[in-house]
Amino acid sequence: MEFACSPCACVGSLRVLRLPPTGILERLDAGEVVIGDGGFVFALEKRGYVKAGPWTPEAAAEHPEAVRQLHREFLRAGSNVMQTFTFYASDDKLENRGNKLTFTGAQINEAACDLAREVANEGDALVAGGVSQTPSYLSCKSEKEVKATFKKQLDVFIKKNVDFLIAEYFEHVEEAVWAVEVLKETGKPVAASLCVGPEGDMHGVPPGECAVRLVKAGAQIVGVNCHFDPLTCVKTVKMMKEGVEKAGLKAHYMVQPLAYHTPDCNCQGFIDLPEFPFGLEPRILTRWDMHKYARDAYNAGIRFIGGCCGFEPYHIRAVAEELAPERGFLPAASEKHGTWGAGLEMHTKPWVRARARRDYWENLKPASGRPLCPSMSSPDGWGVTKGHADLLQQKEATTKDQLKQLFDRSKTH
Amino acid sequence: MEFACSPCACVGSLRVLRLPPTGILERLDAGEVVIGDGGFVFALEKRGYVKAGPWTPEAAAEHPEAVRQLHREFLRAGSNVMQTFTFYASDDKLENRGNKLTFTGAQINEAACDLAREVANEGDALVAGGVSQTPSYLSCKSEKEVKATFKKQLDVFIKKNVDFLIAEYFEHVEEAVWAVEVLKETGKPVAASLCVGPEGDMHGVPPGECAVRLVKAGAQIVGVNCHFDPLTCVKTVKMMKEGVEKAGLKAHYMVQPLAYHTPDCNCQGFIDLPEFPFGLEPRILTRWDMHKYARDAYNAGIRFIGGCCGFEPYHIRAVAEELAPERGFLPAASEKHGTWGAGLEMHTKPWVRARARRDYWENLKPASGRPLCPSMSSPDGWGVTKGHADLLQQKEATTKDQLKQLFDRSKTH
Amino acid sequence: MEFACSPCACVGSLRVLRLPPTGILERLDAGEVVIGDGGFVFALEKRGYVKAGPWTPEAAAEHPEAVRQLHREFLRAGSNVMQTFTFYASDDKLENRGNKLTFTGAQINEAACDLAREVANEGDALVAGGVSQTPSYLSCKSEKEVKATFKKQLDVFIKKNVDFLIAEYFEHVEEAVWAVEVLKETGKPVAASLCVGPEGDMHGVPPGECAVRLVKAGAQIVGVNCHFDPLTCVKTVKMMKEGVEKAGLKAHYMVQPLAYHTPDCNCQGFIDLPEFPFGLEPRILTRWDMHKYARDAYNAGIRFIGGCCGFEPYHIRAVAEELAPERGFLPAASEKHGTWGAGLEMHTKPWVRARARRDYWENLKPASGRPLCPSMSSPDGWGVTKGHADLLQQKEATTKDQLKQLFDRSKTH
Amino acid sequence: MEFACSPCACVGSLRVLRLPPTGILERLDAGEVVIGDGGFVFALEKRGYVKAGPWTPEAAAEHPEAVRQLHREFLRAGSNVMQTFTFYASDDKLENRGNKLTFTGAQINEAACDLAREVANEGDALVAGGVSQTPSYLSCKSEKEVKATFKKQLDVFIKKNVDFLIAEYFEHVEEAVWAVEVLKETGKPVAASLCVGPEGDMHGVPPGECAVRLVKAGAQIVGVNCHFDPLTCVKTVKMMKEGVEKAGLKAHYMVQPLAYHTPDCNCQGFIDLPEFPFGLEPRILTRWDMHKYARDAYNAGIRFIGGCCGFEPYHIRAVAEELAPERGFLPAASEKHGTWGAGLEMHTKPWVRARARRDYWENLKPASGRPLCPSMSSPDGWGVTKGHADLLQQKEATTKDQLKQLFDRSKTH
Repeated sequence: MEFACSPCACVGSLRVLRLPPTGILERLDAGEVVIGDGGFVFALEKRGYVKAGPWTPEAAAEHPEAVRQLHREFLRAGSNVMQTFTFYASDDKLENRGNKLTFTGAQINEAACDLAREVANEGDALVAGGVSQTPSYLSCKSEKEVKATFKKQLDVFIKKNVDFLIAEYFEHVEEAVWAVEVLKETGKPVAASLCVGPEGDMHGVPPGECAVRLVKAGAQIVGVNCHFDPLTCVKTVKMMKEGVEKAGLKAHYMVQPLAYHTPDCNCQGFIDLPEFPFGLEPRILTRWDMHKYARDAYNAGIRFIGGCCGFEPYHIRAVAEELAPERGFLPAASEKHGTWGAGLEMHTKPWVRARARRDYWENLKPASGRPLCPSMSSPDGWGVTKGHADLLQQKEATTKDQLKQLFDRSKTH
Repeated sequence: MEFACSPCACVGSLRVLRLPPTGILERLDAGEVVIGDGGFVFALEKRGYVKAGPWTPEAAAEHPEAVRQLHREFLRAGSNVMQTFTFYASDDKLENRGNKLTFTGAQINEAACDLAREVANEGDALVAGGVSQTPSYLSCKSEKEVKATFKKQLDVFIKKNVDFLIAEYFEHVEEAVWAVEVLKETGKPVAASLCVGPEGDMHGVPPGECAVRLVKAGAQIVGVNCHFDPLTCVKTVKMMKEGVEKAGLKAHYMVQPLAYHTPDCNCQGFIDLPEFPFGLEPRILTRWDMHKYARDAYNAGIRFIGGCCGFEPYHIRAVAEELAPERGFLPAASEKHGTWGAGLEMHTKPWVRARARRDYWENLKPASGRPLCPSMSSPDGWGVTKGHADLLQQKEATTKDQLKQLFDRSKTH
Repeated sequence: MEFACSPCACVGSLRVLRLPPTGILERLDAGEVVIGDGGFVFALEKRGYVKAGPWTPEAAAEHPEAVRQLHREFLRAGSNVMQTFTFYASDDKLENRGNKLTFTGAQINEAACDLAREVANEGDALVAGGVSQTPSYLSCKSEKEVKATFKKQLDVFIKKNVDFLIAEYFEHVEEAVWAVEVLKETGKPVAASLCVGPEGDMHGVPPGECAVRLVKAGAQIVGVNCHFDPLTCVKTVKMMKEGVEKAGLKAHYMVQPLAYHTPDCNCQGFIDLPEFPFGLEPRILTRWDMHKYARDAYNAGIRFIGGCCGFEPYHIRAVAEELAPERGFLPAASEKHGTWGAGLEMHTKPWVRARARRDYWENLKPASGRPLCPSMSSPDGWGVTKGHADLLQQKEATTKDQLKQLFDRSKTH
Repeated sequence: MEFACSPCACVGSLRVLRLPPTGILERLDAGEVVIGDGGFVFALEKRGYVKAGPWTPEAAAEHPEAVRQLHREFLRAGSNVMQTFTFYASDDKLENRGNKLTFTGAQINEAACDLAREVANEGDALVAGGVSQTPSYLSCKSEKEVKATFKKQLDVFIKKNVDFLIAEYFEHVEEAVWAVEVLKETGKPVAASLCVGPEGDMHGVPPGECAVRLVKAGAQIVGVNCHFDPLTCVKTVKMMKEGVEKAGLKAHYMVQPLAYHTPDCNCQGFIDLPEFPFGLEPRILTRWDMHKYARDAYNAGIRFIGGCCGFEPYHIRAVAEELAPERGFLPAASEKHGTWGAGLEMHTKPWVRARARRDYWENLKPASGRPLCPSMSSPDGWGVTKGHADLLQQKEATTKDQLKQLFDRSKTH
């Protein structure tokens, strides 16, 4: 099976005159596979532009060349969706716990929209404006206050005319429903994505019921992102799909999991793993793990398939390569990648050339190179959720006394 | 201990008037720590611009924005050396086994020099032109022919006036000596770096003796790069240092290891691991592993400390953060990184805030998340080296028959 | 907390005049902890007296000294129950697939009863006669035929006047109910133990429902044995207990798990693990794992706590040591064991003496010493159950042709 | 290849009139394979008759039936040597650190000789009297005093007329030489076995030199036992053999390793592993590992091949089965063991029958079932040796103050 690289996805040297791309719902209604992008905060943290801890996206305004380059790499890898780099760009989050920024939320959101649109126009991609959960909700502010926070981000998205909207990374379906209600007012297509697993949201609402609530609130696409590995996320979206269908409703489905293996997670996902966020390397999925993920997601009836934290461009390329038969073409970046290791046919060493075959990589059980380390961890969540004092927003930096208390408590958990 | 970020290393928004940077030998003679960059071929393969197998650097001419961005990220992370992205850019290698390129070796080498210089000028960095081992040597071409290959790349480096030269990634000290002899003729400082471990080169020459030969050939800096993890590479350079000192010679020392844990390697390094090159993810070093590496290398008397395959910008930043007390400043990218996890003080979840401390990360044994995988592999090298028919250069693509033979042989190894 | 060793459990040099021991139901009704013994077939296989594959107990007649010694070791370790070594001693099983024996089922069953009684009389133990699942059931023989098989074994137990009866190691609750119905006719107390996990029996009957059926059939004690590790077995018995209580019934509970860690099992348990039965060593529980097991079982309300395959005398001793506070005494074998490693206070090396403490052993994560091996396996069951041709009884040895077919099929599973 | 079970090795029901067995040196001179037994202290600790910590063999007098049974199991498994159960039975060791015994050293040594002889006479086995290292030597007592300690044990061996003598489990070659000098005076054949690895004895004397000294002192058989896994022990004996041959001397070679995988040991062996002695389970060798061990040892030119701590009867049987072609017969216990899993041909489940083949078991990588545990540990020896205050003999029990000091020190190591 041979595919030519997508002609309209070439970036850099070549620009093609083009019509506005088909909308997200038209694509999904037509049964197309829509490939999402990967996780910007984690990728840019490793590149030196995002601070782990606050995880805020000021790089959109501060270092646009870095954000633009990452967008391009995902586009080149096969993404059809450029999500604006606006994760946690609500004003309440931007000033949480002493995170001092020289840009306003509006500046960051505007810059992010411009970058996403610029690169989307270089290929066949849509721009999606995104909002995510807020410290305000965790601090028990009112529905009105929380909705006002979303509204503020939304004003920028409308001004910049994004193609559709995603409410993503919500641990509580209640807050996600509020977000969807705000987003729906714009008339744009709305996707809603929770960061929950098979056990459901932080209040114990099961995935199926979560999905039903989101669809009833107006989301046309529902699914999950972040917090769990592909296996777990696909399983969760399946439960959502069953719930929606059982309720006699209709929706499209999306999944954007971690690129980390997390068989040892509890309900709050990888946040609770001792390795989060600076020791996750041994868990990173290979490109071959991604082939399996893409196939599983497709077989589960999911058609908006992307990634979240840990996804690098080559992970998205693997998704696009696995689904090339369904899509009919390979992504641009496949010009630098022989499918299933075929590029190794050109390697100098004969025993490496011998690895240029699918069954070799499909059956490999990659070693960790870490004989002193285990294969699983015990998650250490403290079981607190919305409303708990520990989760209240705090503008000031965490004090030394507060830290000492935390260190002491962590020993007893 | 508090450090300000390096004022002259800020990139993007700010450009500072500056004098030409101090040369590599002056820095090392003065006892300064010189921080190298990371591995471009592996990083750019994951970003979609380099093909695994041939591993050639045509992206310098083809996608300069991607190469420039990676240079900038390493600069921002603390690198003092921008190596020209010219690995394997000798004409014989560029046309090996059906690797069809639309750029000549000269075009690639020139473009790479320009990019390295452009970014070096944005900070306090030197440009190093690099040559590496050739298919010609493996195919038993004469000293004269092999030297002519190096000479061709060198002409570009001289025309572009690089600051110093590195002969790196040599498995046979004999070929490295030839390279050093060619490089020395330019009058530029010369560094020589083998890709060997404690067992020595592919002909069994021990590290100490390798180093002596290289120093006698004129290299002012000797060391190793690639093929092994930091622990093994530092150990090997120590053996080199002992050899050089025992011989009554003097040299500076460099080390640029893999960012992969490889306790299970044999003499040919990670090439022989079953995971090479598409299943190495579980072996990736964390930033905390890098702190240990930087300290070990420094304690061993090595002062040119960088990275090779697998090193991402945040790995180099960790090296720079560990050696900030010695260097007197933090790298620019540390504005987005609290030392030893301090940024987590701003995290929403209290149990994640409790991880904002050095002893937590220093003692973590990160799980692989892969219970079906082992912690070590059995390397599968075939024990062939220079002159063996299996290693001869071949312009044409590997044929299906050749591949079948390899697959069959791989089952019996 | 100090305990004297049980005065009446001393064996060998000392025999005490004694009354008949209190019956099993009287003990359980009084809230006593009853400690079972360990798995004879696995222990005696390693000692050279049982053949893995048929797993038949002819050693009771053939090598009585070996069986007697093992009984004594379990008694000394704290067991209150000497199960007759009559596992798989039904005539249909004894002649399955070419297993040529020189003893009849009756001879074996009688010898086993005598040995159990002899050793039980040396301490405070009861004799339990046991029957287990039959090839006849798997081969779809009638209820009448299957019951006749049990009856034949039972005649010996009655003649030898065992203290109570156990129907154990049943994969199908239907067959276990038949067994209980036969055993009940004797008027002896009856325990029923399935080898199922949380997913229930091989026909999918959940643990709670299984337990209810067994209690209704007349079993006074219900629980599980074999096939799964302690964690899983305790969980399963909890589900049984919930089922029984929900049905408004009453019962006592027993658990006799494997001494192997089996987190990777599917519904058929360790039989399906690739390591069964000759590669299970790395999974063997430590004595400290047994402390945890004993406490968990006790906390779950289980009072008949023993072991099955893999349990050696020191495992049972650990159970008895953990529950010494509840029982009021230590087992005889504790004269050779300092609780929680206290015996190490006498070790020559100071760093080993430093391990003489509870928190050291409780927190140890013991390494496998096998870096090329994973921590979990993929079970390889073929999903066949009662009635499938593959499970039919066959008196003749498996033929070479039959084996070849199996080897071929195993490659596709 | 079919072998009959050894006719003269049948125990229990059958006793055969027999001539005195051929001596150890005659056997080795004739090129026969001599199979040793396994480790009594560890096996009997698990059966409840030996106390871990002091590890003294009072069970020979206290519980003779248990010791006799273990001898029989090893005989039945193929052992040609019944070592008297006299490990650490020197008077100075018997009263070390509060180990209160009701038997004298002489009583224990005599009882052990009688048991070994009784069982040896049931088959084709020799009785070997053993002495091992003494607290006196570690406490720097004089050569004369140390030799007097050995002499005392020896008097019993001579009175009981053992067939040959073994000085085994010595960490310092100097003390072993003293022992050999004492043993030589009896005129009996003398074997000498150190518990050292490739790095040599605790004073750094390399294996080759150790062996030369022992041979010069009069040992006819030299080798190693305990402290390391088979792989390491065979490697060490090879080094001994090279040393002896290089010195122009002649000797026979013996090896009796641990049945634990110890790739992570330093020079003092498994004592330093955090799992010693109560968490070693995951490291236990399978019977298939033993096949490999036996073949490696044989190929290395070793002809006295046995086991030490961790060896159970089935491990010795595996050695005897692997070397059946060389020996010409299978051990008695093979009547209950199909070679390479052949007994599984009789298993009920077809997928287990499919495991009845050599390549299945030879290639199995057995999982640990412990995803939270690593595959290797960091040894924690304190680097103290002979003469250090920490190792001095002490008759009184370790005090609470002494223990507290140890616990504190262990945290800083």
